Amino acid sequence: MAHIITLTTDFGTQDGFVAQMKGVILHINPEALIVDTTHDIEPFSPIEAALVVNGFFGYFPPGTIHLVVVDPGVGSSRRAIVARCQGHYFVGPDNGVFSLVFRNNVACEIREIKNPKFFMAQQHPTFHGRDIFAPVAARLSSGWPFEDVGPSIQDPERLSYPPALKTEYGIEGKVIYVDRFGNLSVNIETSMLDKPVKEINLGSLSIKGLSRTFCDVPDYQPVALINSFGLLEIAINKASAGESLGIGLGARVRVIWGDIIPD
Amino acid sequence: MAHIITLTTDFGTQDGFVAQMKGVILHINPEALIVDTTHDIEPFSPIEAALVVNGFFGYFPPGTIHLVVVDPGVGSSRRAIVARCQGHYFVGPDNGVFSLVFRNNVACEIREIKNPKFFMAQQHPTFHGRDIFAPVAARLSSGWPFEDVGPSIQDPERLSYPPALKTEYGIEGKVIYVDRFGNLSVNIETSMLDKPVKEINLGSLSIKGLSRTFCDVPDYQPVALINSFGLLEIAINKASAGESLGIGLGARVRVIWGDIIPD
Amino acid sequence: MAHIITLTTDFGTQDGFVAQMKGVILHINPEALIVDTTHDIEPFSPIEAALVVNGFFGYFPPGTIHLVVVDPGVGSSRRAIVARCQGHYFVGPDNGVFSLVFRNNVACEIREIKNPKFFMAQQHPTFHGRDIFAPVAARLSSGWPFEDVGPSIQDPERLSYPPALKTEYGIEGKVIYVDRFGNLSVNIETSMLDKPVKEINLGSLSIKGLSRTFCDVPDYQPVALINSFGLLEIAINKASAGESLGIGLGARVRVIWGDIIPD
Repeated sequence: MAHIITLTTDFGTQDGFVAQMKGVILHINPEALIVDTTHDIEPFSPIEAALVVNGFFGYFPPGTIHLVVVDPGVGSSRRAIVARCQGHYFVGPDNGVFSLVFRNNVACEIREIKNPKFFMAQQHPTFHGRDIFAPVAARLSSGWPFEDVGPSIQDPERLSYPPALKTEYGIEGKVIYVDRFGNLSVNIETSMLDKPVKEINLGSLSIKGLSRTFCDVPDYQPVALINSFGLLEIAINKASAGESLGIGLGARVRVIWGDIIPD
Repeated sequence: MAHIITLTTDFGTQDGFVAQMKGVILHINPEALIVDTTHDIEPFSPIEAALVVNGFFGYFPPGTIHLVVVDPGVGSSRRAIVARCQGHYFVGPDNGVFSLVFRNNVACEIREIKNPKFFMAQQHPTFHGRDIFAPVAARLSSGWPFEDVGPSIQDPERLSYPPALKTEYGIEGKVIYVDRFGNLSVNIETSMLDKPVKEINLGSLSIKGLSRTFCDVPDYQPVALINSFGLLEIAINKASAGESLGIGLGARVRVIWGDIIPD
Repeated sequence: MAHIITLTTDFGTQDGFVAQMKGVILHINPEALIVDTTHDIEPFSPIEAALVVNGFFGYFPPGTIHLVVVDPGVGSSRRAIVARCQGHYFVGPDNGVFSLVFRNNVACEIREIKNPKFFMAQQHPTFHGRDIFAPVAARLSSGWPFEDVGPSIQDPERLSYPPALKTEYGIEGKVIYVDRFGNLSVNIETSMLDKPVKEINLGSLSIKGLSRTFCDVPDYQPVALINSFGLLEIAINKASAGESLGIGLGARVRVIWGDIIPD
């Protein structure tokens, strides 16, 4: 069995909260292999966690435990869950952080964390990451059975990005994510791009067709491509599209098919 | 014996200084398990390191070695020390970074790093983290005896936050820490809150009583609670109190007991 | 054999790109020990990666694999390489990220990554870090022979900082790096400072001679010293020289020898 526990939070690292979780895990299972994925999820944004976790989990070996703590509702009545999907385990709050994993994997088995043997007897009401989720992940990595965590549930919280809309001339979408490089991810998946793309409009910008990679255009020029999330992306070669264009989350993007006659 | 070495610095990670320390540790002890806690301690702030280290160390298993390098006085005559407290080891400069650990653990044994077998023959005068502290931590993790590090000392540097003051109507405190979420930690520990709290004042803000968790108030409303450091905290549910209120380190906070008749 | 793989990128961590690479590595070699060095290299800056990697690699044990992905030309015709220098392995794009390692180690053996058994059958054109470089590093760490990666090359891309110039009165240099603390590294190596230094000028600032460490001057005063990269550094004791002086990359620095009579 793998003993890998990935750790994804919106805690940053400055405060030592992540360190407290790591200590709890290693205290329970000194053999656990903790892998930092990111602690820079936008604070209070389960949907962003959902996108990032769905992007990386499949690259890890089956048996990996993915511990995700983006938990603005900590201490409220939101449930705590563990899911098993494709042989991977997912531990975190039931607030949508696993939405994209669940959407893409119909065969997930999901359980509510109810068995008190799995977590701390005393839980601080603002830090279930340390007192509930980290102990559960550590005990699963020690071989405690998934089935013992608690009862099955069928209705996990599901978040989704606003859908892109097909129109007579193409697709209307929105920027749903801005990455570290300022590249803009749009809510248009590869599968929607089923006709030749003539142009992509974003604000006053018009980009001719799809490219394969950034360098297919000259330096500092805009480019549209399919990114490694499988989404349409607007970028600027060797610069930040977000900053250069002054564009962020929610900005409208229009894809126009090649068989449309322009006005 | 555990071989865990936690690593806490104010180096950030951009420059590769942390990487150099990791290389030194793994060169000396390839079996060491290095755990990044944070490299984002406020630069030149031993007191912030003291708060963070005291917050996480107890969650790690006994035998863990906590390497802390926040060292504005590097190359000066400040001492280099190793302490053993509650079965944990602490390696770093004697500038107060372990103040809260020492305050809460009267039975600490503290030694000055003097034995040259433990560190590099040549030390760069601006980087004892790499040339002294990392080798000492690595050798302790390899099983070299704590007693051989150097002579015992009784007078480590101790820093402390300004104390909160009890008054006739309640407590006068100050904001001493702002976390990643903009939550404001106040120098008022749980033990001081020994009467029912009527209200908490901060600038023009008045908060009625203590809550248990953020979600006990509506979104974007202020809330006061006991945080996971065991300190009074002023927060805003799902937002940054620091930014929203324009309040930072040193701001005055007033707790008023419930049995006081307001003017 | 060591199984250490260091990981250096300009990806930040927020997007999960680093996590995807870690997953790929652990999927191929669950025994690999992944060490985060930095993910905060200035985006699109191979020369900064070159400086940082050259600074840390020698502290790791021989056999370490250094995976470096700062790759603005991803998907273009730039080559992918593995180098072996001093018993260390270096995996990354052939865009200069190993320039300083190659400059200082004449005996490097460099091979182009051509053997498709080493990497993913399908590569996303914007993410060779995940689909080519991570698998190559993982397979090398599993014991696959370096010689099988691909053919030797003799002409790797080499970047260099602008050289400092010796003049009749001293040296004319430039700020080439600003670290997390705002300390300014200058393109003047220790070996060039072969005469007594009288003063160092930077903008309107004049610093008398070289110091050994920051604390050799009072708090908040400027100081010049040899830093742990082996370069001349201008700093301010306990503050940021970059911010205080408003000085950044490219600023001119003048060293004046002690045997020059001032005007």
